[in-house]
Amino acid sequence: MSFSGQPVKGVIELGVRVLEHNDATALGLRCIFARKMVKVANLISSPGTGKTELVIGLGAYLNAAGRRMGVIVGDCATDRDARRISGQCSMVRQIITEGLCHLEAAMISEVTVDWPLDELDLLLIENVGNLVCPSDFDLGEDVKVALLSVAEGEDKPLKYPHLFSTADVVVITKVDLVEPCGTDMAALKSNVYEMNPSAVVVETSARTGKGVDLLAGVLLSWGNC
Amino acid sequence: MSFSGQPVKGVIELGVRVLEHNDATALGLRCIFARKMVKVANLISSPGTGKTELVIGLGAYLNAAGRRMGVIVGDCATDRDARRISGQCSMVRQIITEGLCHLEAAMISEVTVDWPLDELDLLLIENVGNLVCPSDFDLGEDVKVALLSVAEGEDKPLKYPHLFSTADVVVITKVDLVEPCGTDMAALKSNVYEMNPSAVVVETSARTGKGVDLLAGVLLSWGNC
Repeated sequence: MSFSGQPVKGVIELGVRVLEHNDATALGLRCIFARKMVKVANLISSPGTGKTELVIGLGAYLNAAGRRMGVIVGDCATDRDARRISGQCSMVRQIITEGLCHLEAAMISEVTVDWPLDELDLLLIENVGNLVCPSDFDLGEDVKVALLSVAEGEDKPLKYPHLFSTADVVVITKVDLVEPCGTDMAALKSNVYEMNPSAVVVETSARTGKGVDLLAGVLLSWGNC
Repeated sequence: MSFSGQPVKGVIELGVRVLEHNDATALGLRCIFARKMVKVANLISSPGTGKTELVIGLGAYLNAAGRRMGVIVGDCATDRDARRISGQCSMVRQIITEGLCHLEAAMISEVTVDWPLDELDLLLIENVGNLVCPSDFDLGEDVKVALLSVAEGEDKPLKYPHLFSTADVVVITKVDLVEPCGTDMAALKSNVYEMNPSAVVVETSARTGKGVDLLAGVLLSWGNC
């Protein structure tokens, strides 16, 4: 059953204007990021997919390779993730949304205005953990990344089609847990490609390090070929 | 950093009116549910926490005990969950929200209007997978249930305080995966109690059946003592 009651419609209509305003801000950000030659990725997933551990792994890999990474972390509450990431990354900012379910371009603009972006190779934006709302908001990124862990089941790409069909890269996390979780990886990837035939799919494990180098390469070189 | 740009404020102000309208509808539903003597639980979690598997387990347990359960399933897309649950439960309805990130009381009213609610002992509402937005919307339930899996990490109650501080029952799912996930259960439960000292916490595994009987008992007897 679909549902379209009046109050919801009211929110959606105002929401369209919010999105237009957001898109204009995102366009400006995209120009700034391009001029500063920093690649920007917007990481979107459920809570608990392992975004923060993967960001820490990417930070360690890039540090060792002599590349510089900045991170913006969005959460409804607490600055725990920014504190965890700061061990591998000197340029980290936490956005606490106080209950808001997504990041918006104006927030990214506000926290990066005094950053020396031209010193960075990669800027990761770790969005609020939510598979629905963040996918509507352009943050000026080069690469929209959807992440899902093998513990979440195979059907999530089908059930959250907007995110998975609009993502440039789909990262499958926690692949060290395929066996205990009983995940059917072939079915999971088939569902990803059903929603998004041109997605770049990267399998990762922050625990073992699998795929971190590949993901770093994909993000750093995005749009270069 | 907290953020309160004008467009977001506009959405929040309209949102307050939507919530007032929703609360009025929920109040009416709560009266109907009480008159029909059916217990109603609103299940809220991230995508992939295992709500549907747990609902199937509850259905099998209640069938064997001669009790009747109805289920309403909310998803952004697909009726996969309703089809999976229908094997254990004859009274199932799928609400496809077409991208909306939560269920609202009017949707519950619409799908239950022709149901013989007085034939049910328990009505489960499986909300859209999302730890943020669904927790604002009262659906007329007796019991608000927050679920999180051991694969999601220990800190989710701290990072999503609104849901976890307002839930009556917190269900920890997939406890058969504690060891492979390396979950610190003491820390996880401590974080739950930090947000919500009076929460009823139930540990479950749909795979082994652990805790399904206890959860059924808690939901069926809620408010009786």
